[in-house]
Amino acid sequence: MALKLYGHPMSTCAARVLACLYEMDAEFELVLVNVQARDHKQPYCLATKNPFGKIPALEDSDLTLFESRAINGYIVTKYKGTGPDLLRLDNLKESALIMVWMEVKSHSFNPPVSAVVYQILISPFLGGTTNDQVVEANVEKLAMVLDVYEERLSKSKYLAGDFYSLAYLHHIPHIHYFMKTPKASLISSRQHVKAWWDDISSWPATKKIMEGMSIGGNA
Amino acid sequence: MALKLYGHPMSTCAARVLACLYEMDAEFELVLVNVQARDHKQPYCLATKNPFGKIPALEDSDLTLFESRAINGYIVTKYKGTGPDLLRLDNLKESALIMVWMEVKSHSFNPPVSAVVYQILISPFLGGTTNDQVVEANVEKLAMVLDVYEERLSKSKYLAGDFYSLAYLHHIPHIHYFMKTPKASLISSRQHVKAWWDDISSWPATKKIMEGMSIGGNA
Repeated sequence: MALKLYGHPMSTCAARVLACLYEMDAEFELVLVNVQARDHKQPYCLATKNPFGKIPALEDSDLTLFESRAINGYIVTKYKGTGPDLLRLDNLKESALIMVWMEVKSHSFNPPVSAVVYQILISPFLGGTTNDQVVEANVEKLAMVLDVYEERLSKSKYLAGDFYSLAYLHHIPHIHYFMKTPKASLISSRQHVKAWWDDISSWPATKKIMEGMSIGGNA
Repeated sequence: MALKLYGHPMSTCAARVLACLYEMDAEFELVLVNVQARDHKQPYCLATKNPFGKIPALEDSDLTLFESRAINGYIVTKYKGTGPDLLRLDNLKESALIMVWMEVKSHSFNPPVSAVVYQILISPFLGGTTNDQVVEANVEKLAMVLDVYEERLSKSKYLAGDFYSLAYLHHIPHIHYFMKTPKASLISSRQHVKAWWDDISSWPATKKIMEGMSIGGNA
């Protein structure tokens, strides 16, 4: 039985899993969740998919998983023999470095980049306004993170080393939206970060998820 | 050569790694970082330990790792043959469920619990005040998360299943401090959450890290 992914392609978390499924060439069915109707907050979804009312969730026979990074770890491990080894599971050192940069992405990169994307793209789309103070505070934080990335990427092709991995893939959805904001120069003004983004944004799995990622007319 | 852990036992992130090292019975040396003197923000530490200026960092010969969850994944995998299998590395399904609950801990449990601990214990310790509005907003969020935990723990002994794992261990440092606040009843009023905490807080590795975790006279 094919995997079932419950989510929506415009969600960054669902897009992260979609990219992984495409990358691993896994057979799956996408079950669209009507986010605007808040289907994922309904009792049935809370009881059977994700008790925290978020998307995506993945079903594989009797196993249900949520949290996109956990789902991707499962997919990469399950299809280890047939797809690319995006977690370098047989190399303790490289595998640990991938984990380091996935954690950096979660805890240092994600908060500022998602705040900027929310303020500039999502809030107006939902009928709200953009809080410029929040934008500037997070642009400052993001710049500091990207300075570390620039230094790191001047020494190796990708963040965890000279091999591509889940660490690259997890960055794509947020940067895709971020590049549609007037703050995109934070990426494009840094030589090695820009080269890295030009590289990872040109891959087939990346292009495929980008087709489904659109917030209003902005992306 | 023994592992070298750079950190301080009162830091929740360093304590998380210490608990894992004790649990795996790994030989290591703790190199105390003078956090108040901001040693971890100095150029030497930024260049050789963690470019984001945080603790802990782990050195194993020529490998340097940071981000506590990545470090713990490395330790558990490295000592797989001799210590407990805290990641159930040979069981795809159980391993994935552990990842789910470690991600829940990072993204749903951590933000509210750390905000409450910061406001009630750390801010006054640093000479600041407690923002009651921030406390109440985060108590409300934490209560919702703990309702999910209560439901989950009514069905299995631990969060990921009937086996203990890194998922339990990652919760300990923050809950230890949280139980010293007047909001501790959020844990103790929930039957299954309380039983779970009573269980995991009584283990040797847990007790060992708690000895070093003290903020002023509060913990």
